[in-house]
Amino acid sequence: MTPRQIAILGSTGSIGRNTLEVVRALDGQVRVVGLAANTDVARLRGQIAEMRPVAAGVSDECLARDLESDCARAGTELVGGGEALRRIATLPEADLVVNALVGAVGIEPTFEAIKAGKDVAIANKESLVAAGSLIVEAAEEAGVSLIPIDSEHSAICQCIRGEAKSAIKRIILTASGGPLLDMSPEEIAGVTAERALSHPTWKMGRKVTIDSATLLNKGFEVIEARWLFGIGGDHIEVVIERKSVVHSLVEFVDGSVCALLSAPDMRLPIQYALTYPERVRSQVASLDLEAVGTLAFEKPDRKRFPCLQLAYEALELGSTAPAVLSAADEVAVEAFLDGRLKLGEIYSVLREVLSLRRPAVAASLSELLEADRWARLKAEELVAARYGSRPS
Amino acid sequence: MTPRQIAILGSTGSIGRNTLEVVRALDGQVRVVGLAANTDVARLRGQIAEMRPVAAGVSDECLARDLESDCARAGTELVGGGEALRRIATLPEADLVVNALVGAVGIEPTFEAIKAGKDVAIANKESLVAAGSLIVEAAEEAGVSLIPIDSEHSAICQCIRGEAKSAIKRIILTASGGPLLDMSPEEIAGVTAERALSHPTWKMGRKVTIDSATLLNKGFEVIEARWLFGIGGDHIEVVIERKSVVHSLVEFVDGSVCALLSAPDMRLPIQYALTYPERVRSQVASLDLEAVGTLAFEKPDRKRFPCLQLAYEALELGSTAPAVLSAADEVAVEAFLDGRLKLGEIYSVLREVLSLRRPAVAASLSELLEADRWARLKAEELVAARYGSRPS
Repeated sequence: MTPRQIAILGSTGSIGRNTLEVVRALDGQVRVVGLAANTDVARLRGQIAEMRPVAAGVSDECLARDLESDCARAGTELVGGGEALRRIATLPEADLVVNALVGAVGIEPTFEAIKAGKDVAIANKESLVAAGSLIVEAAEEAGVSLIPIDSEHSAICQCIRGEAKSAIKRIILTASGGPLLDMSPEEIAGVTAERALSHPTWKMGRKVTIDSATLLNKGFEVIEARWLFGIGGDHIEVVIERKSVVHSLVEFVDGSVCALLSAPDMRLPIQYALTYPERVRSQVASLDLEAVGTLAFEKPDRKRFPCLQLAYEALELGSTAPAVLSAADEVAVEAFLDGRLKLGEIYSVLREVLSLRRPAVAASLSELLEADRWARLKAEELVAARYGSRPS
Repeated sequence: MTPRQIAILGSTGSIGRNTLEVVRALDGQVRVVGLAANTDVARLRGQIAEMRPVAAGVSDECLARDLESDCARAGTELVGGGEALRRIATLPEADLVVNALVGAVGIEPTFEAIKAGKDVAIANKESLVAAGSLIVEAAEEAGVSLIPIDSEHSAICQCIRGEAKSAIKRIILTASGGPLLDMSPEEIAGVTAERALSHPTWKMGRKVTIDSATLLNKGFEVIEARWLFGIGGDHIEVVIERKSVVHSLVEFVDGSVCALLSAPDMRLPIQYALTYPERVRSQVASLDLEAVGTLAFEKPDRKRFPCLQLAYEALELGSTAPAVLSAADEVAVEAFLDGRLKLGEIYSVLREVLSLRRPAVAASLSELLEADRWARLKAEELVAARYGSRPS
């Protein structure tokens, strides 16, 4: 295949590092022309020396200065501060932008990359959860591809290759169920951060691991699928498959169901996005079905995991509601990880923030970002109120 | 979709009748212009009255005469005797020929349909097992499509939609395992026809049900897949999935595996072939994964089911060897159903016939048909020898 030139936003995070691992394994088939990180300058330094990109960005202007000599040595342009993400997202040398940023900070760079005519490999959930409708519209207008990096959405992309959109009847997202699947409601409500961070099948960032424990992550994926594949929420289902071997399924109008299986390894969906539409050899081991043995499918319990239901409701409410849910969740998960909120209280905070705001009929990007800010403030207020009233 | 005009060879058999059921459900999207049967005139009479095809054929010339007035009433041309299959296979009005004939009698009509420029929906195993190389070559030359009706090969077709041929690494055919899967070698060797005919998941014709019990059917499917998908036998595996919910899988070079699932219902692959490349609604119920519960994958035991291994060996030998195996099996299964052979002796007969003939380097159609005749005679001789020597 023709070498592809990519820029990576969030190169020092979990997906960013996996992306670089895939780039190394692809051995010259992909060239990294841009790297951007938030604060992890130590890691970024090594990436710059190795990849020698055209440009590197650091959101923190002071930290950026630490990389001046490294960038000079690598022949890399250094961009620090507020312009960093925009510069790397729109780098003229890049064909494809990998958006591996965590949180709502990833939304605007997705738009900028699209408007600059780049294909976007998208791991930033918030771009699709909060602004999916606008992002998909912008991508269509610009004639660029949005290629999901999530294992679930990548699986769906692979299942519908060569199929007409009208042939799709139902999308079935699989969930490992996270580390709390067999706990009672009481145990779930009071679980420690350490326990909630011990995901059974995937090694991921902390925010998404907690969202996996509450199943809100799966709810976000329902919203993402709604926009990526243009399918109403009532045609998107969630099923538990604990081994994370089946990454999702698609039912077609004739009743045939296509499933995508592999070892649970993020390098696969990343490579698929980097080399799409071609498939090339990877370093991931073949799936040994006999070693897998059995696969079991279970219905998720929306009573014990009410955050899943909340995501469906936000999707149904539409407009800014998913953005509000997503922003409030960033605050609530942070508060849980800080020990200021119990796991069961994440739902209560989200439920309350969502109920406070009546969504506007159609939301522009600025309205979405305003809703995002509002939801953060409200969630912080609610966390503070609970924290204050909790006996210490 | 534009209504498709089809001719059905073997319309009174299991696949033929299911095809007509699909045609009825498609309600005008497919028109039947030709019907051909071997001897079941009673059933064909009803089909002619209902479908009013352009032409109908009966291989038995005497039986054909019974349909004269029925055909006259339906405005249908009647063809009896040796010309019947050829006439229906090459009917000018047909776009697609469904070859649902059982046995080597189906090979020549497949060639004739291809040479007449028809797409062929192929359920006749022998066309691909005995003559796969020539058939695929002829279809490429004529620029027509071969669309398999088998649930396994249909599943593979569906999994590789939109994928480059070079992206395929491995084909994994699933097998329900048949009714004898958990029996000891001694039990298998002496099993009754009645027991061997009680297939756990599929209701099919008698010949293919016995082949499923010995797993030779799966071996034949390996040979078919080799020709349909241009993949060497060493890249085609068999795995047991007892529920017949997973119809087959394809592994791509990157390590991703695509699987095709549905309720075990022959109407699905038949409809897929009739409407290909479009998918249209069917009457088959949606797959309820939670009701399916678990799926288990097991390695087939080639020691207890040596016929599976025999098919791989015939594929490796190449040339006329698969034709010989297929023809000898028709005789051996018939002898088993007649009570002249024990189930375990089917393998012995096949093994011996296969070892007697040294395959020619390249086989023409006439050589294949000659090998077929020779193998039948040899198998009959071996059956007679065993039958004669067995105490009555």
